[in-house]
Amino acid sequence: MAGPNDLKPFFYPASVAVIGASQDEIKPSGIVLKNLLNSFSGRIYPVNPHYSSLHGIKCFPSIKSVPDSVDLSVLITPPDAVPALLREHAEKGVRHIIIATSGFGETVGGEGLEQEIREIAASSGIRIIGPNCLGVFHPSSGLDTFFLPVDRVPRPSAGNISVISQSGSVLGTTMILLEQEGIGIAKAVSYGNRVDVSETDLLEYLSTDEETAVIGLCIESIEDGRRFISTAQRCNKPVVAFKLGQEPAGRLASRSHTGSMSGKYEIFQAAFRRSGIFETTTIEEFLDLLKALSIQRRGHRDLGRSRQKRQKQKERKKILILTNAGGIGVMTADLCSKAGLAVPEIPSEPLKKLKAALPSYYSLSNPIDLTGNSKDAEFGLVLKTCLDYFDAAILIPFMTVPGMTPQLGDVIISSIGKLNKLRIPIVSLCPFSKDGKMLEDTFGKCCIPLFPTPSRLVKTLAHLLRTTDVEPITEKLRGFPGVSSLIRDRDTEDTNMFSLEDKKRLLDAMNLSYPESVRCKTITEAVSAARRIGFPVAMKIVSPDIIHKTNVGGVRLGVRSFKEIQQIFRKLINTTTYEYDEKARILGVDIEKMVQPGVELIIGGKRDPRFGPLILFGLGGIFTEVIRDTAIEIAPVTHSVARRMMESIKGYQILNGIRNMAGVDLDAIEEAIVTVSEFISAFPEIEEMEFNPVIAYPKGIIVVDVRILYVVNSEQ
Amino acid sequence: MAGPNDLKPFFYPASVAVIGASQDEIKPSGIVLKNLLNSFSGRIYPVNPHYSSLHGIKCFPSIKSVPDSVDLSVLITPPDAVPALLREHAEKGVRHIIIATSGFGETVGGEGLEQEIREIAASSGIRIIGPNCLGVFHPSSGLDTFFLPVDRVPRPSAGNISVISQSGSVLGTTMILLEQEGIGIAKAVSYGNRVDVSETDLLEYLSTDEETAVIGLCIESIEDGRRFISTAQRCNKPVVAFKLGQEPAGRLASRSHTGSMSGKYEIFQAAFRRSGIFETTTIEEFLDLLKALSIQRRGHRDLGRSRQKRQKQKERKKILILTNAGGIGVMTADLCSKAGLAVPEIPSEPLKKLKAALPSYYSLSNPIDLTGNSKDAEFGLVLKTCLDYFDAAILIPFMTVPGMTPQLGDVIISSIGKLNKLRIPIVSLCPFSKDGKMLEDTFGKCCIPLFPTPSRLVKTLAHLLRTTDVEPITEKLRGFPGVSSLIRDRDTEDTNMFSLEDKKRLLDAMNLSYPESVRCKTITEAVSAARRIGFPVAMKIVSPDIIHKTNVGGVRLGVRSFKEIQQIFRKLINTTTYEYDEKARILGVDIEKMVQPGVELIIGGKRDPRFGPLILFGLGGIFTEVIRDTAIEIAPVTHSVARRMMESIKGYQILNGIRNMAGVDLDAIEEAIVTVSEFISAFPEIEEMEFNPVIAYPKGIIVVDVRILYVVNSEQ
Repeated sequence: MAGPNDLKPFFYPASVAVIGASQDEIKPSGIVLKNLLNSFSGRIYPVNPHYSSLHGIKCFPSIKSVPDSVDLSVLITPPDAVPALLREHAEKGVRHIIIATSGFGETVGGEGLEQEIREIAASSGIRIIGPNCLGVFHPSSGLDTFFLPVDRVPRPSAGNISVISQSGSVLGTTMILLEQEGIGIAKAVSYGNRVDVSETDLLEYLSTDEETAVIGLCIESIEDGRRFISTAQRCNKPVVAFKLGQEPAGRLASRSHTGSMSGKYEIFQAAFRRSGIFETTTIEEFLDLLKALSIQRRGHRDLGRSRQKRQKQKERKKILILTNAGGIGVMTADLCSKAGLAVPEIPSEPLKKLKAALPSYYSLSNPIDLTGNSKDAEFGLVLKTCLDYFDAAILIPFMTVPGMTPQLGDVIISSIGKLNKLRIPIVSLCPFSKDGKMLEDTFGKCCIPLFPTPSRLVKTLAHLLRTTDVEPITEKLRGFPGVSSLIRDRDTEDTNMFSLEDKKRLLDAMNLSYPESVRCKTITEAVSAARRIGFPVAMKIVSPDIIHKTNVGGVRLGVRSFKEIQQIFRKLINTTTYEYDEKARILGVDIEKMVQPGVELIIGGKRDPRFGPLILFGLGGIFTEVIRDTAIEIAPVTHSVARRMMESIKGYQILNGIRNMAGVDLDAIEEAIVTVSEFISAFPEIEEMEFNPVIAYPKGIIVVDVRILYVVNSEQ
Repeated sequence: MAGPNDLKPFFYPASVAVIGASQDEIKPSGIVLKNLLNSFSGRIYPVNPHYSSLHGIKCFPSIKSVPDSVDLSVLITPPDAVPALLREHAEKGVRHIIIATSGFGETVGGEGLEQEIREIAASSGIRIIGPNCLGVFHPSSGLDTFFLPVDRVPRPSAGNISVISQSGSVLGTTMILLEQEGIGIAKAVSYGNRVDVSETDLLEYLSTDEETAVIGLCIESIEDGRRFISTAQRCNKPVVAFKLGQEPAGRLASRSHTGSMSGKYEIFQAAFRRSGIFETTTIEEFLDLLKALSIQRRGHRDLGRSRQKRQKQKERKKILILTNAGGIGVMTADLCSKAGLAVPEIPSEPLKKLKAALPSYYSLSNPIDLTGNSKDAEFGLVLKTCLDYFDAAILIPFMTVPGMTPQLGDVIISSIGKLNKLRIPIVSLCPFSKDGKMLEDTFGKCCIPLFPTPSRLVKTLAHLLRTTDVEPITEKLRGFPGVSSLIRDRDTEDTNMFSLEDKKRLLDAMNLSYPESVRCKTITEAVSAARRIGFPVAMKIVSPDIIHKTNVGGVRLGVRSFKEIQQIFRKLINTTTYEYDEKARILGVDIEKMVQPGVELIIGGKRDPRFGPLILFGLGGIFTEVIRDTAIEIAPVTHSVARRMMESIKGYQILNGIRNMAGVDLDAIEEAIVTVSEFISAFPEIEEMEFNPVIAYPKGIIVVDVRILYVVNSEQ
């Protein structure tokens, strides 16, 4: 794959051909030509064998008949015509093509055609955006290939936000909403079925694009998860993602929509988190955050922060709410609390100053309510006096109050200066009245973004105050001596079974503890093993043919005497005990030290087709099954990501100690998570592995059971 | 308190006096007079000793000097003047007064003044709305006491929604937002500090008000919880509530805002649920739902439904999503899934019809995507063909598509008829483009509400599809023979302690089981008790001076031999065992049958100052402490409410049986919840009671421990 500069002609072509152009202004082919003629200053070549001229300019019968070089072609023809057209373009030497046409992988029977154009692209070196897409809108060059009429979808002006969207209708909606709010666009791309140019290619290109300050990604799937993450990690501009197809119903819909299969949403969340990408879940949240970031560059990405620094970050952020509308202040404070933000009282020093300066009937507890008697200057005064004591401020100016004027923004600038110079974000509710609209200009001047409702405001502010750990995914893995052969030379017919010795070898290599146990073939061996280990012991049947040992009575816990050992041994090795074929191979009985009660954990690894190895952690037993209280991250993880996983589950309180239960060995768990994450990363043969249960104690952890599933039909 | 008709003059006065009137149009007193002169057709009497006329009409020096009768007075004077003015009004015979003035209970030092006017109201029979409020806006009579200038807060037209709000700024905002959307108001009241007329009085009045079809309540507190619930239960109009001051920060703010103390939010939720009131948590959700209900009367309230019917209701509602904008359809399907709504495939019969009628490249899996080639008539066709198979439909018409026109609404009416005749709700996304605005008229005609974003649409639809159990709060409680004396004749110095006999009497009266146990004073008694009960047993010290028995080693579990009994008995009765005063009274040792492991539950009762007795239920142990997985309802509850409590907790899966754990005796738990709820209702002496743990088994439940806290300083 070529470098990101290879995409430049999609945005800065000197000449554009429209293949299938027409003059019919309600057909896509007519709309695109019309829009280009209106906005694009480069050369335009309509191509359509049925016309000799369109809108008074020459129309060519084919791309080959265009006399000059063509930097970019937009194909808007029936789908069946596309492969031949691509070949013609290759011969002509056109290397950048937007295929707007639909009827490919997103429709029943269109997959073959899609595969054909994918192959042509790969062999000819042509770069393709689409098919089934709107293509590119780039206001500063006037390039506009969206087949949406300008009178129905007004275009935003030039700005610093770039948006990439798989879906055309979402991008169209985004254009309408941004235009309504007067927010500008740097570059907008709808890439549809993605036979060639992908979200990651575009992200890489925009990372170094000078016009772009903020990047919005509206995606349904990601082609190459690892490349996406490392590209996003390298991008030092804020990136906001909105993933469509989050839930089963949506996933299904997504499949038929752009022919792309969406993955499990939690994995995307892990990828976004790891990449330092803001995750949003509604279109308003997506656009609000893009807007705020285009004005105030906030949101921190930290590389490998210290534990102290992370601890500091976990403290709830302190918000000052300043209003002259008590009830709206209360509802905003409610929303802050729900979002994990604090609305603490005004500290005594600034409070004293405010009391001296303001009428006694103003309410000076946070939210500060300046009441219906408030004036512009009082908003300025409170901000100037209090801002140093908070992490952010929310303004709720109710402009129906006679003393408030559209000069409020200027007053704020003169009290505290322009906001982009400040260390903390300030956001404002867009005053609901018509008068409030007048504020837009002056608030724009001092870089205070306006939001239409308290809930949208608080959601965005919470994003601006969030700090993410962007921990690189290391390629350096520890060695697991002696295990390689165990994994690689496994008996492929028996992939899920470990011999006791193999299990011990595995756990020793991972430096994980396990209960002492002895595999016994006779009662005598069992008795002497129990004597050595000490009662109580557990007894477990060993048979490759009995998988769910517990369910069929193949496991006995709390065996306390030699007599019991003898009775149970006889019972366990008798195949008629189980509802199994009498030919079940019985290899023996494991005599195992009973583990002491502790906190049950699960540590697991999993390989995702898009994102590669993943690491899972959670509390075991009913916590995992009923509460689904688990954390998932891209593997391998560093110690600090492992610690974050532990802290992120609800059951963390239990790990940390609760009531008269002591806390468990957090360092040992952290180490185990890191180890398992490196282990699954080291062995691509593994599809899934589960350490379950792992029992955690105040000192140390013990792995009671291990299960590994290998990749079926792995490349050999 | 007089009947609701007593409030009529607040809305339909023949004459209104404005006390403290002025001509200054930026002062509240000037704004109110101006607004009344512009809109009110009855007699208007400005009162102010400083003027002889205002706006060309006579101004009176005092209310007494007004020659005619006055139905309603609006007081906008300094707060200190209010008590004297009220007395003058009482003498004049004015019985309805709105006190707009602030500076009462909501400010430091204003509580005394507020108490004074409360007493004047009570003794004179004057009805008061306020103080610290906007008063009344009633478009059909032209009455408008809001001191908000009309050019800054445009007033909505007359309609069928009535809104009651404690907060003036929230009501002002509501007016602006409704007016912007062209939605009408029947009556709007801001009642501020509520010295007299309360939310419940207003709710009662509006319940029978002919102009009102839907009621919105924006409240910070509720004065009389029980009366509120029964009033709401009797109201057969949909009621939508938005409670401000939900979280600690907001609660604090609320206190300083209108001087009212908010309660725990979960109790309000229980009250709303019990009343059949829709609960909303943001201003947009509140207004969206009011709007939808004013057009489509939906949302069911069922009285005492059968278990089968409830079962049926719990099935996920099936939503048809019909769009020509694939990506927006996917994001809407995502939101439906998150809201617990299903987006199932189109059944084969209608699917066959659609396939025959529509182009093959339309995507006919739900969400149905009619693509950029869609036409109005196809929306009508799909609705007509599929509607019978679904519980609701969502329309997402992307009007940027050339084939779509503003006639879409008419086309829909002609295919399926007017929506208010249909059995199911249909809602639509307001098309984002300017063209989409054109749809408002025709969609209005067919009663399809429009929403600006998918998330607001789905939230409202989920409300419309919800069915609540409005179970009346019965006054008939079972008898608890023999317990009354136990509670009432308790040793008040020792309120938290039960003797073993009392505990047994209590649980017997409630028909609840407990582990067999014997209180023993000697080792001989203990040994013979253990012989009768059978090993293992638990041994528990009995002492009024040792409260937390477990923590100090006063409880021994799993005692398995006579020898152990003897040793432990000696240890337990020796006060030096505990770090206690050696004078601790030791009454004996309880020998108790060890309970078998089962599922730990908590059943509790609690008395709230506003809402009276409450019943709580949850899974015990870490579930209660870590996950806060509890249900709370207003007591007493019926069996069906008790069942709903069980079903509402996350741990219900555990009760119902999970993996290889059997389910527990749901009927026994249900019965116990009902019993405890009736018990706390029967004894107002009880502040809190806790049955914890209760152990549930596949058959039966056992109460292991009971704790009762009595009301301190209860009226004697």
